[in-house]
Amino acid sequence: MDFDLAHAVAVLERTPRLLRMWLQGLPSAWVRGDEGPDTWSPFNVLGHLIDGEEDDWMVRVEIVLRSGDDRRFEPFDRFRHLRERQDASLGELLDRFAEVRARNLERLRSLDLDPSDLLRTGTHPELGTVTLAQLLATWVAHDLGHIAQIARVMAKQYRGAVGPWQAYLSVMGR
Amino acid sequence: MDFDLAHAVAVLERTPRLLRMWLQGLPSAWVRGDEGPDTWSPFNVLGHLIDGEEDDWMVRVEIVLRSGDDRRFEPFDRFRHLRERQDASLGELLDRFAEVRARNLERLRSLDLDPSDLLRTGTHPELGTVTLAQLLATWVAHDLGHIAQIARVMAKQYRGAVGPWQAYLSVMGR
Repeated sequence: MDFDLAHAVAVLERTPRLLRMWLQGLPSAWVRGDEGPDTWSPFNVLGHLIDGEEDDWMVRVEIVLRSGDDRRFEPFDRFRHLRERQDASLGELLDRFAEVRARNLERLRSLDLDPSDLLRTGTHPELGTVTLAQLLATWVAHDLGHIAQIARVMAKQYRGAVGPWQAYLSVMGR
Repeated sequence: MDFDLAHAVAVLERTPRLLRMWLQGLPSAWVRGDEGPDTWSPFNVLGHLIDGEEDDWMVRVEIVLRSGDDRRFEPFDRFRHLRERQDASLGELLDRFAEVRARNLERLRSLDLDPSDLLRTGTHPELGTVTLAQLLATWVAHDLGHIAQIARVMAKQYRGAVGPWQAYLSVMGR
């Protein structure tokens, strides 16, 4: 489907509430389990989502909308949370994500973007020219991809426990 | 991790609330979009989850726990929802899922299963002998697999909209 700002915001505003509903109070074996070395637990994914709110999505939106010719994005550090958020509690991360996401969506609404704004462009360090609509659509798809990841990582904690059913559960991987 | 009944229930009891938080009030393009012919939308997945509550998981738990030698499971119809639930509203399906899941978890708790019960077995029509612990772990993993599916199906609605970012988003598939 085509990008639609209201549709995008409907997904973005739900993600913090969804993660709180899902992860808060869940036994830590679910929250801290990962898929093996150099993979992320749900806790790590949440840290990464916060980093995106702080350093990536709206920062790039502002770059696209500024005047002048230099609208090049900084590279985004996908691993900052692994250095800086390990000592936080899950509750702190859930609170922080809700706070920064809400602030970013408030800022997004205040920009009162019109269809011509959505065609404005920035320069991605690797992908080249991208439009504001593509940036915002990616913000949404990035949330959804990480929700899928959290579900998959949790499911894999029961890879052995499901016994022969493993063959029927594509979420377990091959 | 090993199967743990309290851990399993913690996930199972969250799924209806998570789906309500996520899908209720969401534009229907998100809820009704699928991945192409013979694939399921989030709406379809929700119907399938209800079918599982009505016909599959606890029905099989009761079969495992009954006395006698015949503890063979009936095959589960994975497509009933496509025939019978198409005219329901999303809100009706969310309400129904919450209701049947809550009833099943109440029944599960009332069984007061002990560790030896979890080793009792039934006969799956294709997989052969399975334990009660494996059945309950599969119920959990099945929820999580379908949550991952909903996120993936929603993300794919923006497959074109994300432009060059598609290459970075593994959730879009290849």
